[in-house]
Amino acid sequence: MAARLLRGSLRVLGGHRAPRQLPAARCSHSGGEERLETPSAKKLTDIGIRRIFSPEHDIFRKSVRKFFQEEVIPHHSEAYSNCSGPGFSIHSGIVMSYITNHGSEEQIKHFIPQMTAGKCIGAIAMTEPGAGSDLQGIKTNAKKDGSDWILNGSKVFISNGSLSDVVIVVAVTNHEAPSPAHGISLFLVENGMKGFIKGRKLHKMGLKAQDTAELFFEDIRLPASALLGEENKGFYYIMKELPQERLLIADVAISASEFMFEETRNYVKQRKAFGKTVAHLQTVQHKLAELKTHICVTRAFVDNCLQLHEAKRLDSATACMAKYWASELQNSVAYDCVQLHGGWGYMWEYPIAKAYVDARVQPIYGGTNEIMKELIAREIVFDK
Amino acid sequence: MAARLLRGSLRVLGGHRAPRQLPAARCSHSGGEERLETPSAKKLTDIGIRRIFSPEHDIFRKSVRKFFQEEVIPHHSEAYSNCSGPGFSIHSGIVMSYITNHGSEEQIKHFIPQMTAGKCIGAIAMTEPGAGSDLQGIKTNAKKDGSDWILNGSKVFISNGSLSDVVIVVAVTNHEAPSPAHGISLFLVENGMKGFIKGRKLHKMGLKAQDTAELFFEDIRLPASALLGEENKGFYYIMKELPQERLLIADVAISASEFMFEETRNYVKQRKAFGKTVAHLQTVQHKLAELKTHICVTRAFVDNCLQLHEAKRLDSATACMAKYWASELQNSVAYDCVQLHGGWGYMWEYPIAKAYVDARVQPIYGGTNEIMKELIAREIVFDK
Amino acid sequence: MAARLLRGSLRVLGGHRAPRQLPAARCSHSGGEERLETPSAKKLTDIGIRRIFSPEHDIFRKSVRKFFQEEVIPHHSEAYSNCSGPGFSIHSGIVMSYITNHGSEEQIKHFIPQMTAGKCIGAIAMTEPGAGSDLQGIKTNAKKDGSDWILNGSKVFISNGSLSDVVIVVAVTNHEAPSPAHGISLFLVENGMKGFIKGRKLHKMGLKAQDTAELFFEDIRLPASALLGEENKGFYYIMKELPQERLLIADVAISASEFMFEETRNYVKQRKAFGKTVAHLQTVQHKLAELKTHICVTRAFVDNCLQLHEAKRLDSATACMAKYWASELQNSVAYDCVQLHGGWGYMWEYPIAKAYVDARVQPIYGGTNEIMKELIAREIVFDK
Amino acid sequence: MAARLLRGSLRVLGGHRAPRQLPAARCSHSGGEERLETPSAKKLTDIGIRRIFSPEHDIFRKSVRKFFQEEVIPHHSEAYSNCSGPGFSIHSGIVMSYITNHGSEEQIKHFIPQMTAGKCIGAIAMTEPGAGSDLQGIKTNAKKDGSDWILNGSKVFISNGSLSDVVIVVAVTNHEAPSPAHGISLFLVENGMKGFIKGRKLHKMGLKAQDTAELFFEDIRLPASALLGEENKGFYYIMKELPQERLLIADVAISASEFMFEETRNYVKQRKAFGKTVAHLQTVQHKLAELKTHICVTRAFVDNCLQLHEAKRLDSATACMAKYWASELQNSVAYDCVQLHGGWGYMWEYPIAKAYVDARVQPIYGGTNEIMKELIAREIVFDK
Repeated sequence: MAARLLRGSLRVLGGHRAPRQLPAARCSHSGGEERLETPSAKKLTDIGIRRIFSPEHDIFRKSVRKFFQEEVIPHHSEAYSNCSGPGFSIHSGIVMSYITNHGSEEQIKHFIPQMTAGKCIGAIAMTEPGAGSDLQGIKTNAKKDGSDWILNGSKVFISNGSLSDVVIVVAVTNHEAPSPAHGISLFLVENGMKGFIKGRKLHKMGLKAQDTAELFFEDIRLPASALLGEENKGFYYIMKELPQERLLIADVAISASEFMFEETRNYVKQRKAFGKTVAHLQTVQHKLAELKTHICVTRAFVDNCLQLHEAKRLDSATACMAKYWASELQNSVAYDCVQLHGGWGYMWEYPIAKAYVDARVQPIYGGTNEIMKELIAREIVFDK
Repeated sequence: MAARLLRGSLRVLGGHRAPRQLPAARCSHSGGEERLETPSAKKLTDIGIRRIFSPEHDIFRKSVRKFFQEEVIPHHSEAYSNCSGPGFSIHSGIVMSYITNHGSEEQIKHFIPQMTAGKCIGAIAMTEPGAGSDLQGIKTNAKKDGSDWILNGSKVFISNGSLSDVVIVVAVTNHEAPSPAHGISLFLVENGMKGFIKGRKLHKMGLKAQDTAELFFEDIRLPASALLGEENKGFYYIMKELPQERLLIADVAISASEFMFEETRNYVKQRKAFGKTVAHLQTVQHKLAELKTHICVTRAFVDNCLQLHEAKRLDSATACMAKYWASELQNSVAYDCVQLHGGWGYMWEYPIAKAYVDARVQPIYGGTNEIMKELIAREIVFDK
Repeated sequence: MAARLLRGSLRVLGGHRAPRQLPAARCSHSGGEERLETPSAKKLTDIGIRRIFSPEHDIFRKSVRKFFQEEVIPHHSEAYSNCSGPGFSIHSGIVMSYITNHGSEEQIKHFIPQMTAGKCIGAIAMTEPGAGSDLQGIKTNAKKDGSDWILNGSKVFISNGSLSDVVIVVAVTNHEAPSPAHGISLFLVENGMKGFIKGRKLHKMGLKAQDTAELFFEDIRLPASALLGEENKGFYYIMKELPQERLLIADVAISASEFMFEETRNYVKQRKAFGKTVAHLQTVQHKLAELKTHICVTRAFVDNCLQLHEAKRLDSATACMAKYWASELQNSVAYDCVQLHGGWGYMWEYPIAKAYVDARVQPIYGGTNEIMKELIAREIVFDK
Repeated sequence: MAARLLRGSLRVLGGHRAPRQLPAARCSHSGGEERLETPSAKKLTDIGIRRIFSPEHDIFRKSVRKFFQEEVIPHHSEAYSNCSGPGFSIHSGIVMSYITNHGSEEQIKHFIPQMTAGKCIGAIAMTEPGAGSDLQGIKTNAKKDGSDWILNGSKVFISNGSLSDVVIVVAVTNHEAPSPAHGISLFLVENGMKGFIKGRKLHKMGLKAQDTAELFFEDIRLPASALLGEENKGFYYIMKELPQERLLIADVAISASEFMFEETRNYVKQRKAFGKTVAHLQTVQHKLAELKTHICVTRAFVDNCLQLHEAKRLDSATACMAKYWASELQNSVAYDCVQLHGGWGYMWEYPIAKAYVDARVQPIYGGTNEIMKELIAREIVFDK
């Protein structure tokens, strides 16, 4: 029930994937000079601020918030037990982007309307038990059999894995390629295919409203039409899509940080200790000043990246910086905000507790932050 | 069943409360000069190391580990669902210490053997909904009625609260005292007393094997024998016991850090990435060096504090330093160790995930670390 | 000789005070979408990058660098011994701004051309021995005597104090004002006036090319024309000018950080250790990635602030964030870059050593970073 | 004059080299249980505290302080200009230790009394222009010519290099050794020997009371008696002595930290701002609490290491931990203490300014802290 509700309402989200539909914002939009920037806003989460947004964005942002408030939050604790809530950003920010950018006309026609309507949930399967963030070590493979492909292997840590209707699977198609990068292809594997086994849902520390699962492929026969893009070009597509994925993580991170800041500002302004509100303590005030500064500085960078991405100018290293920096910020803010909540910060009924454990995976997935630093460092040390 | 098992086995733990029974260790014991210190040990968790321990301690430490391995760990996931696992250190390290040090002969005779046998679980109730770490704001009160006392009020965040058989309750007994410090008394409130209501168990982020509950006292009639120590001396007893409680938290923190380090060392030495073990990466090696150094430096301090406590020379500010520093260490180590586990670090089946969320409460309870800094600062700024 | 050379060449700098003369840059300029952002540039210090700049800025930036290269750097070590190098940003970024914005037509005519030509060096004197960053504690005062003013008092930590030809002095003019803020005026005090005594130059840790001095005012008779702006409005003018001063510090901080990064990148790419260049070590690569990310994130924020300032929309708290964050960055970058230079990083002949000690004052002057946090916190805690 | 004064007074220091002459302190001395530990002391720098010291140490420490107060400090600013102050710890803590432990009876008789009397200043020359912390890259070499040796090569960053009367020079003596470690020998090179050229003194950021110089060896003819210890065993001697050298750095670091803390405590208790002393601000109080805790925790570890060293049980990795951790502490404390001094912290006349720049070299020399982490990590990752 909750699941169906959520699926139906994905229409709104799927149809308006934020970063790709900024209306010609380039570096700013007309009227941008009158909007407040984050540091000057009354609340960091206010609608109507930030130069990268236009009044049309404001309307969209309002409707998204209303939707979440009315349709998601009331079902969220129920969703927790049923693990029915899908990973929104993976569905609409990653999987739909792959299909739109690299799919055939038929694939786009077949999947995108269903996915926009929330009737078909997407996932993407890269990571393998033995390989971690290392694409070179992939063992899942697809072999040609006539015009069909036979897919074998397994994947782990797949967000939406259990709930998904279609999964983009990364597989080796050419073992003789000069490097693994030249021998990888992408396939659209659908729920119900013979040999497609969904393993156990992993018991995560947090992010409990979305499932993370193991997937097994045992001699799955795939038609030629299941190939996404061209044969052996998978690595190239992944490299093209990764900056957007990493920017999404950064954007979630900075937004979560802004949310946590406002939750905590509210709390310390109400909570009394030693005869005054906690917000009257000088150490608390300085901590809030540090948090807000850290957040606002990062917001400026992520908004710049959103503009660059909109202009198709976001390069890999810059996206890596955004992902690494913002996800570290998020965890640092979460730690301090839990502390400012005192004992209640440790209790699940306070949003800050959930935010704390949800934050912890962000420096890990989408390429660990250590991988981010490797990629950033390459540009620094080895002349392009 | 699991609960009974755990209770029965508390005999061992209760009978040998570690910090109080160091055999005349003073600053070291004979033979101490041949024992390895933590930084030189093969594993940080090795038995047979650290100058503060004698061979008798080694034997005791081995038997405790054997007990946990055989009697607790197999029931732990079961324990999780039933919330049956008691907070060991609160029971034996705090509550029993209060009764032994400040109780009457009758109280000691009545409670200690039962508690040592694990048949009577203890808790202590200080914190109130509106007061946090601030003892001055306590509203729970006991009024004399003949030789009896009538107890009213409520408490929150009480570890073992739900499971406990006896609770030490902090209550105001003299509203006219020149300061709240002079008007507080301690009472032994037993399970089943009329008007003693155990509220809901709080849904914590971690520490799921011990319950944390709200307690309500509605016109509980307590006999004179329920008073622990003398009337209006509660604040004094609390001040006496707090250093031990804080040292316990520090000790749990440093031990947990050592455990996490060894878990992680094992993991990175086995886990392969990019064709080598993760332990071969220079960045991982330096991170491990930083962690080990941070841990060993802290261990030296906490062991010094244990020696001082044994010699009854641990002052309040020093205990506060140990609590604040070690609990920050624990969280910092936990964060880095989760990261070194990659995606698995976020999965509940890996001990590091539990350790991460368990760690988060340590800088909060026993007086928040901000309170610790207040107490440390007083000694610095205002001449004693 | 060196001093005269530097003065003559200030013409260029004075005539093109950067932040105020950005040609209609608003949020970006036409063509901005083709410019690289800092994270993607070959060097962080490249000319031709950053959306806030136009080709005209590039030409100006090139000529400034050429000037420094040819006219300042060769005299710099000589300058060190003679303490003759003026504090450029105080002269052109702060003092000239006060006079232009708040001066009378006569004052502007009299001072600005001389200052633009580098023939008249400016300073501003706020801080007093007993008052630090606290304007409320100012004791220097000016009393009316007919239409003249009699100025008495002393100042400390005055950059350019010794070299200056004209000093803006902050003095109390109304002791009966409801708050000190309403009783402060600004005066233009010129070198050679009777009773104007320049004290010793302070021996600073770094920033040795500019002097920092004590100033004494003993019954200086000032004509009515020495009053800058209106009587008792000094506090208001200071509040108006402070964001620009703080932004200047932030801009110096981020530019210095970019310079240090490039110096260090060069060094580690050439320096050999253990048979390879230092840049080949993974730990060095990750450190460089962290530094570059930290710098690029901050650059995005400071550039945003420059745009806001150009549009006259930079508020006090935002400028405080920029000053505090960027000056901390600068010191953190300096520390790491010295370390990456090994022993040579400690030697004065390497620019990184000078940069390290120069950096240390930035979190202190212009209002300590603790004051910045106070001002940021006020906006957070007390609703505007 | 100042130089002679300092030399004469080295007698006291040379004759009581602290770490080696602790009288049978092992883990503690009798009476240790009554001494305050650092966290409980009135001042961190108090004499009479710390379990590792006996009353005899107290008397010695007092006389050293008196000596410095009366004989060194009055000449220190003079010393600065003349660079006449020797590096005490290199002379007595390192060079004398090499000669005592590895020298022949004749060498000990010849050098030690002169060095104890302060008439012969020692230095040790390892680092070479191209090799940094890497002993494997040493190019300075000594070739046999009959029973003599002919020494050629150059060294850099040699503390006391200019002032020294005798230098221990590390040179390659066997180019065919299976590894450089097996082909290195130590030589005692004396001032005035033909071909021994002292290069320029390096202009350091701080530590201005001791010189750091380049040394050149051009066909110096050395008699067989100049060899220190056995031929080709230099690497072994260096490995033996390095833990003491690193512990010395750690000890200087923690002592400097304690000094800076007390300087700063004094300052903030006297300095007024906003109508109160700075010490009344809650943020300052918490900062002091953090600093004291960080220092006390580190002191416990370094004191443990001193005890281990006295018992000849300090291993290499533990000494590396002490050096790395304490030197980072020192810089972190220095940064914060400068900040708490406000503008005065940047002025050379305040001891905190000197302490700040002096601190910066400690994480670099004696093996950079990155080398420390390499050595610590080896023990962690590769089973001993």
